[in-house]
Amino acid sequence: MNSISIHPIGGIPEIAAGDDLASMIVEAANAADVAIEDRDIIVVTHKVVSKAEGQIREIPDEQTYRALVESEAANIIRRRGDLVITQTRHGFICANAAVDRSNVQNGYALLLPVDPDRSANRLRTLIERATGASIGVVITDTFGRPWRRGLTDVAIGIAGLPSLLDLKGTTDTHGNLLEVTEVAVVDEIASAADLVMGKATGIPVAVLRGLDLSGDGRVSDLVRPPGEDLFR
Amino acid sequence: MNSISIHPIGGIPEIAAGDDLASMIVEAANAADVAIEDRDIIVVTHKVVSKAEGQIREIPDEQTYRALVESEAANIIRRRGDLVITQTRHGFICANAAVDRSNVQNGYALLLPVDPDRSANRLRTLIERATGASIGVVITDTFGRPWRRGLTDVAIGIAGLPSLLDLKGTTDTHGNLLEVTEVAVVDEIASAADLVMGKATGIPVAVLRGLDLSGDGRVSDLVRPPGEDLFR
Repeated sequence: MNSISIHPIGGIPEIAAGDDLASMIVEAANAADVAIEDRDIIVVTHKVVSKAEGQIREIPDEQTYRALVESEAANIIRRRGDLVITQTRHGFICANAAVDRSNVQNGYALLLPVDPDRSANRLRTLIERATGASIGVVITDTFGRPWRRGLTDVAIGIAGLPSLLDLKGTTDTHGNLLEVTEVAVVDEIASAADLVMGKATGIPVAVLRGLDLSGDGRVSDLVRPPGEDLFR
Repeated sequence: MNSISIHPIGGIPEIAAGDDLASMIVEAANAADVAIEDRDIIVVTHKVVSKAEGQIREIPDEQTYRALVESEAANIIRRRGDLVITQTRHGFICANAAVDRSNVQNGYALLLPVDPDRSANRLRTLIERATGASIGVVITDTFGRPWRRGLTDVAIGIAGLPSLLDLKGTTDTHGNLLEVTEVAVVDEIASAADLVMGKATGIPVAVLRGLDLSGDGRVSDLVRPPGEDLFR
């Protein structure tokens, strides 16, 4: 195993619908002296992707926000007071159908991209075209966990990467067949990148360098099918 | 925000009960040219901590293993076939009471440390004494998630670090008060370190450098109290 490094990419201007986010990322990375290279993994918070794709809605009041959450949810999993745990159309289980009022102008909310893997693939293609580098892309959001307090970033869209690293059939240093077979490596990448992105710092992109990973996973591979789910 | 780097520390010999793990980590880090510095965060898989603390049990057969899982569990949360989702005495909810048959010699299993924060604090004190550096320590294990496939590493013991980064009252780049208030930064550190540690590679330690974090959190801060828990 090699060392890895994770570089915050700030200096990306406020994004509007239709903006060429890929070019903005390439330019900001150059300006940050982190010119994108082969095998870099570009981690992007969904907020800038959603803004570029016009996934923004006006919410003049709390009632409009609540209605938007309900309409974005494919299923309601639990309710307690104002807390609504939902499943999105993508299959993600998270609070408030991932409708997000932070890092957007007051009176508006961001939705997730309609097809986050497609968004990741489009970013990947455009960044590869601009730089000549072969890269991976992870689009992230911030989710809670049922039994652990605090939030962590997870992958909601991926391109050029495996979704799960399947270690089945490999042996550990003692020759035991591994019981732990599938590592959610793209979620670990999302969490790692959040360490340099923060929530309030205006850093929507990070470049993770040194991890030799490529694949053609889909984020839907990470969604546990209802038949496996013991906690719904 | 600065860049961070994460360095795998291999070359640690097989650990036996009573071994001075702290010295072994310091020596292996030196040998890997990653001499421990101020503000480094040392991430250690619990397996080597458990071995050094004698938290190892003989399991001659599957029945003994099953009995050990039941006796280690404080509560059984769900069962399906051989899959047992448990709460440990520490409050962690995970499969098989975290009783682990990988990376240990055949016929044995590892338990979690009795008090992982105390284990982390002891490692911190001994490493600080040996190096003169002021550091943080995170002890990790690999847990599943109810709604997402694949496993990620999480913190099960911490020292010299905040457990949750509370952003309450801070504003984002648009002046909105943040709704997301608590980031499980030590879980993000655990996941980040797993990217260079792997599961089958004999790398039980990583050094995370560049993150300016210190605090006196306890891992129990991360355990969601039953009254907040919607999914038990």
